[in-house]
Amino acid sequence: MPSSFIDLRSDTVTKPTNEMRQAMFDAEVGDDVYGDDLTVLKLQEMAAKLLGKEAALFVPSGTMGNLICVLNHCSQFGSEMILGDECHIHIHEQGGCATLARVHSRTVPTQSDGTLLLKDIEQRIRIEKDNDHFPVTKLVCLENTHNRMGGKVLTVEYIESVGKLCQQYGLKLHMDGARLMNAAVKLDVEPAKLVQSCDSISFCLSKGLAAPVGSLIVGTREFILQSKRLRKVLGGGMRQAGVLAAAGIISLTQMPKLLKLDHENAKLLAEGLSKIDGCEINPEKDVQTNMVFFLLNSDKLRMDAQTFANILKNDHGILVSVPGKFKCRFVTYYMITKDNIEYVVEQVRHILENNKNII
Amino acid sequence: MPSSFIDLRSDTVTKPTNEMRQAMFDAEVGDDVYGDDLTVLKLQEMAAKLLGKEAALFVPSGTMGNLICVLNHCSQFGSEMILGDECHIHIHEQGGCATLARVHSRTVPTQSDGTLLLKDIEQRIRIEKDNDHFPVTKLVCLENTHNRMGGKVLTVEYIESVGKLCQQYGLKLHMDGARLMNAAVKLDVEPAKLVQSCDSISFCLSKGLAAPVGSLIVGTREFILQSKRLRKVLGGGMRQAGVLAAAGIISLTQMPKLLKLDHENAKLLAEGLSKIDGCEINPEKDVQTNMVFFLLNSDKLRMDAQTFANILKNDHGILVSVPGKFKCRFVTYYMITKDNIEYVVEQVRHILENNKNII
Amino acid sequence: MPSSFIDLRSDTVTKPTNEMRQAMFDAEVGDDVYGDDLTVLKLQEMAAKLLGKEAALFVPSGTMGNLICVLNHCSQFGSEMILGDECHIHIHEQGGCATLARVHSRTVPTQSDGTLLLKDIEQRIRIEKDNDHFPVTKLVCLENTHNRMGGKVLTVEYIESVGKLCQQYGLKLHMDGARLMNAAVKLDVEPAKLVQSCDSISFCLSKGLAAPVGSLIVGTREFILQSKRLRKVLGGGMRQAGVLAAAGIISLTQMPKLLKLDHENAKLLAEGLSKIDGCEINPEKDVQTNMVFFLLNSDKLRMDAQTFANILKNDHGILVSVPGKFKCRFVTYYMITKDNIEYVVEQVRHILENNKNII
Amino acid sequence: MPSSFIDLRSDTVTKPTNEMRQAMFDAEVGDDVYGDDLTVLKLQEMAAKLLGKEAALFVPSGTMGNLICVLNHCSQFGSEMILGDECHIHIHEQGGCATLARVHSRTVPTQSDGTLLLKDIEQRIRIEKDNDHFPVTKLVCLENTHNRMGGKVLTVEYIESVGKLCQQYGLKLHMDGARLMNAAVKLDVEPAKLVQSCDSISFCLSKGLAAPVGSLIVGTREFILQSKRLRKVLGGGMRQAGVLAAAGIISLTQMPKLLKLDHENAKLLAEGLSKIDGCEINPEKDVQTNMVFFLLNSDKLRMDAQTFANILKNDHGILVSVPGKFKCRFVTYYMITKDNIEYVVEQVRHILENNKNII
Repeated sequence: MPSSFIDLRSDTVTKPTNEMRQAMFDAEVGDDVYGDDLTVLKLQEMAAKLLGKEAALFVPSGTMGNLICVLNHCSQFGSEMILGDECHIHIHEQGGCATLARVHSRTVPTQSDGTLLLKDIEQRIRIEKDNDHFPVTKLVCLENTHNRMGGKVLTVEYIESVGKLCQQYGLKLHMDGARLMNAAVKLDVEPAKLVQSCDSISFCLSKGLAAPVGSLIVGTREFILQSKRLRKVLGGGMRQAGVLAAAGIISLTQMPKLLKLDHENAKLLAEGLSKIDGCEINPEKDVQTNMVFFLLNSDKLRMDAQTFANILKNDHGILVSVPGKFKCRFVTYYMITKDNIEYVVEQVRHILENNKNII
Repeated sequence: MPSSFIDLRSDTVTKPTNEMRQAMFDAEVGDDVYGDDLTVLKLQEMAAKLLGKEAALFVPSGTMGNLICVLNHCSQFGSEMILGDECHIHIHEQGGCATLARVHSRTVPTQSDGTLLLKDIEQRIRIEKDNDHFPVTKLVCLENTHNRMGGKVLTVEYIESVGKLCQQYGLKLHMDGARLMNAAVKLDVEPAKLVQSCDSISFCLSKGLAAPVGSLIVGTREFILQSKRLRKVLGGGMRQAGVLAAAGIISLTQMPKLLKLDHENAKLLAEGLSKIDGCEINPEKDVQTNMVFFLLNSDKLRMDAQTFANILKNDHGILVSVPGKFKCRFVTYYMITKDNIEYVVEQVRHILENNKNII
Repeated sequence: MPSSFIDLRSDTVTKPTNEMRQAMFDAEVGDDVYGDDLTVLKLQEMAAKLLGKEAALFVPSGTMGNLICVLNHCSQFGSEMILGDECHIHIHEQGGCATLARVHSRTVPTQSDGTLLLKDIEQRIRIEKDNDHFPVTKLVCLENTHNRMGGKVLTVEYIESVGKLCQQYGLKLHMDGARLMNAAVKLDVEPAKLVQSCDSISFCLSKGLAAPVGSLIVGTREFILQSKRLRKVLGGGMRQAGVLAAAGIISLTQMPKLLKLDHENAKLLAEGLSKIDGCEINPEKDVQTNMVFFLLNSDKLRMDAQTFANILKNDHGILVSVPGKFKCRFVTYYMITKDNIEYVVEQVRHILENNKNII
Repeated sequence: MPSSFIDLRSDTVTKPTNEMRQAMFDAEVGDDVYGDDLTVLKLQEMAAKLLGKEAALFVPSGTMGNLICVLNHCSQFGSEMILGDECHIHIHEQGGCATLARVHSRTVPTQSDGTLLLKDIEQRIRIEKDNDHFPVTKLVCLENTHNRMGGKVLTVEYIESVGKLCQQYGLKLHMDGARLMNAAVKLDVEPAKLVQSCDSISFCLSKGLAAPVGSLIVGTREFILQSKRLRKVLGGGMRQAGVLAAAGIISLTQMPKLLKLDHENAKLLAEGLSKIDGCEINPEKDVQTNMVFFLLNSDKLRMDAQTFANILKNDHGILVSVPGKFKCRFVTYYMITKDNIEYVVEQVRHILENNKNII
């Protein structure tokens, strides 16, 4: 895409900062499959410390991070996991938990705030372990921030309540924390505190944190050792990965403090949109972090989301994503400025006012 | 279990009739793996004809029947199926569709009448086939009669409406018809008509139809040829299976006409129970075939379902199943008489009256 | 196949004896999925005792027996097994150990006597457990008698030597004993002694032992409990399976003593064939149990094995199998008499003499 | 590892050149999951052109490259592939073809020159497609250069002969070309000519070609489109992967011409070693590219390979790998100079002369 576009499709489009490029240029590297890459080792130590766990592992993507964690917790044949029906693992990872990790998924309705009700989780746990009709429940997965629920934040208290339930039934708790730092910044809480009840966490360096490539898995030393094996069989073992890890270190040290601005920009955008007729969004309730989902009111407007997105792109140089027939998603990140936001709001207003239903 | 028990746990406990035993004794057999067992071939032809399809395959169980059909329709890596969140395949087959057939399951809320809403199915079909985040939707599964919804019957019209939706999106439709004959009898419709929109059906000889062992898969000739391969790899290829098929032929010819009595007995039982204080059941709405689910009212009674079942078994010689904390299931079949029903109602009344809450 | 054929394709074509049919007619049955079928329970106890192990499980086929055992020993993701390159599991079970049980197979050249060299096995064991490039070796499989090596018998001493190797490396040893009783009879040794080093055994009731359907898995109580779960997910749980088990009890009590005759008949057949010009077989070395493999000498004869088999079938009413271009297999069992053998030898002589190369 | 070591363990330890680091610094990047990274697109086009195929795909590792190709060719349930018993896919990729791709492997003895005999391959093809005992043969895999056979080179003629066999039976041919450029350089042939019979090729940028991370899959447009889906589900989809691809472009343009030197250095090393008593190697026959395998003669020396390697590392600053009890492997690459080679030979001579058996 030409860099002149304002790209709000996702925070995955973040490009590395100059500081990252310099760090990559200077990176000390080695063969990480042999455990010789000091930059990767340093990044992994930082990540483990940041999340208050024993060890961490660098992986090429968040999808691989989640897949390895699911496969690791459910490595015994005949396992089942409980997860939200709108979570990324269930909807957006091509079903790899079944097709590769061969884990049976039992879903729970996702609440609008991204939580799963404790009673819904509990009701799905297979307690009769000797019943041959049932797989064995091994794992519960949460997602924070919750992408499809609009970047909603799970609180420390909520996660701990799920953690307690898991402990009670001998289950493991995995956190898909692709955007965990956004949650920590929003809640103004230490990341380690946010995941203290979790047995494993995967989180991404390549979204709001702007690294070009990579995610991290965090857990116990034993869990990470097994995860390294699983990374290898999946083909995620990389050689001089220190060139990527060097950027990742900047992601962990320099970028989290910028996320607050992204959240402010998202709120600003939501407020601007909320004042446009036909644009349905509640800034207070719907926007907690860097994602702005809104609906085009089909009673008031004669356009669907795809048409709207095409006009934004072709006539106004603005890229957005379209997760539903009348649903749009705008995502902010460090390269999106306050000026960009004001420009975007103006263009949206312009388009929608020209596409009202004539009644 | 001593035969003096009245066993209402399930219609899977049906014992072969004397006519079946005689047919097994007399059965002409051969090695069915070589295709030499004439009795099996005859049964398969009868089943195909009964359901109006090209071919059929004898398999050891309904679970294998469903597993083969799912694996057959979804034999391409990366497939997803849509099915009800309360169906037998999803809840009661140990997750084999994921752990063995490695198919991703996307569930739809099951309505109290056993149906899935068309809009719920449609909303879950992955239409963007080139979106790498998504598996490929291949299959929709229905269940008729619907076990966990109380033996509810799906109508010809409903099944056809799902069939049309499937055709529109290029999906296959599988019917878990473990108790399909109960549905056909209840609706007074030809079984073939009931499944005319289905690409595959599995149905059981060993439940209300009283055969000792076996189920059938029905579909196109090509589908059955592939299913035979899958039966082999799963270990379901049996040698002189004609001894079982001989009983199955009696199941198809003699037993369906008796199912009507089972339904009447179930209704009778439900009506009897509905008149007992603390026993929650609506005979008209809840009981359509041979299953009677009811709730023990925990406000009125000081016992849960397991305690109740234990008393029924130990003091009254009645066996039942307990699918929920306060939920019981009674199932009728050809060996359960009207007298049995009256006896059971009396015993339940006796127990519940003696276990009322003292307020 | 019309019963007038002499069917030497396999001992899988054995039909149940009259005693078996009567036992099936009289069988006390129950729902075996609930554990209520006393005849199945009795058969399982007999089998466990016969092989000197804690417990046994009735399954529909030898293929399922092997698959369950492999899946059970290798239920942890990332497992590898070592087995012979000519064994039934590797060649004749459709690759289910990979496609369903997702176990990696490492093969060892099979010796002409059916054994695998200890040094070949040992060389393939992955000893560096922390090497991420390697799967984890979990299991060694043997086959006794060895089908594709001509029904060869593994001795107690050999099996114990493999057992010791397995113990030394912490591996499990599975015996595919589809025709284990033939081996025991040939060696004149207690079956229990023959498998004392094995962790699991599967053996068939439906081959030389003449039961219509079924095999047994034998092992520790814990192993069988897990195997029962695996049988369920594979769809091998059968309801009133006592009708089959009743025949199986006759197989265990009445049939083993008849196997000696089958072996004598096979030897007789081999000796007869060895005297026919163009028919390559060494009765002493090649024929140990009930299988007779021989080669048609393509220098001396102008026919391949398939042509030969077709003539045998169409002109002489004799059915045989053709495992190679010039290779034939004849198998004896209780229904094949000494007179049949003499007739077969005569017909073979007649055909081969009329199809010599004219030089 | 401190850079003062001479690291001959593998060519995977190559560090990026300064030119690569500069290219990474300057790389134009975008979100490659959206197809927006122009540098990745450019690398893929170059790779496709280089190998004379329609399209290419950048993946994180050679293991993922092979896994995706196997899964793609064998995406239908019940597939089998034929491959060498010493190839990397079979021995060194943790069994992922079975555990993840659920493909059954049928191995062929690997010849000392890295080839598989045509008759051995042909004999293992399952020609009876309707035989339910057999999986379906879909794929043959070759490896060039062949790692475990000492970096041996497969010729154009040989690969074409296998290609013809595959066509004859309707099979696909995959080339594990982790070090394909070494083969092309050795044979002095266009890479495209070398793989013209292959349906898919994976080759690595991160070995002798010195890129920090990455491999490429090459094949038809349709194959690559499917491979992109498989890369996603495995977690190999990376975001601003252009930072890696930029180095990969240097690998393709600048590095191949240097491989000739690596081969010369390997030959020099082999010749030096061959003159040391106790060091078994035939430079002419055993060393074709950049790998030097040799045996320590246990009759002449009182040390095994691991002891030898430890002394080399601790006392002489030389790192090597130990693929067998008495077997060592030295690998050359662009950072290993002629001076290094001479130093290494001297140190080996010194050690072995001091560890002779006293007879």
